Amino acid sequence: MGRVTVRRPVMRIVDGETRRRPDVLAAEEPLEIRVDGQSLAVTMRTPGHDVELAHGFLLTEGVIGARDDISIARYCDSVDDSGRNTYNVLDMALTPGVPPPDDSVERRFYTTSSCGVCGKASLDAVRTRTRFAPGDDTLRLTTEVLAGLPDTLRAAQAVFDSTGGLHAAGLFRADGTLLVAREDVGRHNAVDKVVGHMLLEGGVPARGTVLMVSGRASFELTQKAVMAGIPALAAVSAPSSLAVEMARESGMTLVGFLRGTSMNVYAGTERIVTPDASPVTG
Amino acid sequence: MGRVTVRRPVMRIVDGETRRRPDVLAAEEPLEIRVDGQSLAVTMRTPGHDVELAHGFLLTEGVIGARDDISIARYCDSVDDSGRNTYNVLDMALTPGVPPPDDSVERRFYTTSSCGVCGKASLDAVRTRTRFAPGDDTLRLTTEVLAGLPDTLRAAQAVFDSTGGLHAAGLFRADGTLLVAREDVGRHNAVDKVVGHMLLEGGVPARGTVLMVSGRASFELTQKAVMAGIPALAAVSAPSSLAVEMARESGMTLVGFLRGTSMNVYAGTERIVTPDASPVTG
Repeated sequence: MGRVTVRRPVMRIVDGETRRRPDVLAAEEPLEIRVDGQSLAVTMRTPGHDVELAHGFLLTEGVIGARDDISIARYCDSVDDSGRNTYNVLDMALTPGVPPPDDSVERRFYTTSSCGVCGKASLDAVRTRTRFAPGDDTLRLTTEVLAGLPDTLRAAQAVFDSTGGLHAAGLFRADGTLLVAREDVGRHNAVDKVVGHMLLEGGVPARGTVLMVSGRASFELTQKAVMAGIPALAAVSAPSSLAVEMARESGMTLVGFLRGTSMNVYAGTERIVTPDASPVTG
Repeated sequence: MGRVTVRRPVMRIVDGETRRRPDVLAAEEPLEIRVDGQSLAVTMRTPGHDVELAHGFLLTEGVIGARDDISIARYCDSVDDSGRNTYNVLDMALTPGVPPPDDSVERRFYTTSSCGVCGKASLDAVRTRTRFAPGDDTLRLTTEVLAGLPDTLRAAQAVFDSTGGLHAAGLFRADGTLLVAREDVGRHNAVDKVVGHMLLEGGVPARGTVLMVSGRASFELTQKAVMAGIPALAAVSAPSSLAVEMARESGMTLVGFLRGTSMNVYAGTERIVTPDASPVTG
């Protein structure tokens, strides 16, 4: 596909001096995800790794639980005004026997339509149910390995990010080995691509791994990690209150403000150890 | 409401040394927006300015076009397990005569269900129609005023942002006067709160203004500005390709990488002038 970036002319102004030059921008296009011909969602994403993205989205939204739940993924014959395929509509065929996304799933994506939600706690109203148990994962992460994740992710990202406009997500083993890294204009898409890659490789639930994201840790990203059976999430920036709540309820480890050798551990401190494997306790 | 931040214990690790302390996190809770009792959307937002948020959302999604299109905004009696109102469900009553959000609106929010989208260009598939004409706005912005916006926005933000986890959006006059600033865990929510505030104050279409956002300029944020009749958008970081495309089609001015006295102008360069009001041309 090769549409991760596009070139556009820009007027650059520095101290009142102007010059025109081409600039490299992160590509953003809508991807429509259909299930058995029915439109389920449109996400604004950076083209590329779309099949991974769709698998990851369906897994983290609870529509599918395993790779074999999808029988075929194919681009529809969607064409633009000049007759070229846009590659912006992807149809995912469920394997016979897999229940289609029902009303409650659709509600969960976008809206909660019954009055029943009124009586529910906030988390209940939006969360999906994981089929895995990341809380039981015996993963241990040394502070040394954690400190190295941001640089490794940036190095993987630097290959094709010249735009300053892409979020990155990477999945690592406990020893700091990078399993997969993906970039996207949307933070949730970058994570869905990582999760979808693992699903297609037979690596879900992603036991014994840590997910690193370039920005903040929101509720949505934390939930996606839980849905993929990932026991630890690390972020360069701050988590939200609901991300911390979700991580604690799920038994996940949540690390924020991971910069250099400093970090904040908001949940699951028992998985964090010093390089000689002794537990870190405050 | 006062739930913009929450305190949670955290284990802080610096160079292997650990200590426990309380940390201040950006609050994130779901807000369900209903229209005449029907659920339309759930957004993960930072509580506060919810009525503005709902007005801004409905305007930028094309459901309403004016303040008077809403007759009543009120919190539902949604309670949590301990019987307290969650203030997380807001019902917006349309003024008699205002058409309810129809299927096509719902499709546009989340999904495009007909095969018709296949033949459309990518922008057509997702964009809403503005009732205003920001392209006709005679706004002129000096490079000096633009250079001052990030500091003004940060100063407004610093009052209550101690978390590092909030996005900010601010609307300014051509002379750099701040009209309103809002923060949120979600970038789009911060913009919707700003737009909703302007709508409630009778300030939409927001002619002669520039919207400044703390992060990147995505398609979605650009579209929200267009929908509110805002003729210029400035961002601290990069725009996406579709944001640039949208700005050009709409006749909007789009500035990215606005840092100190340097900036990139991606669209609508005719509105950018030097402090002595002479046009900036490359």
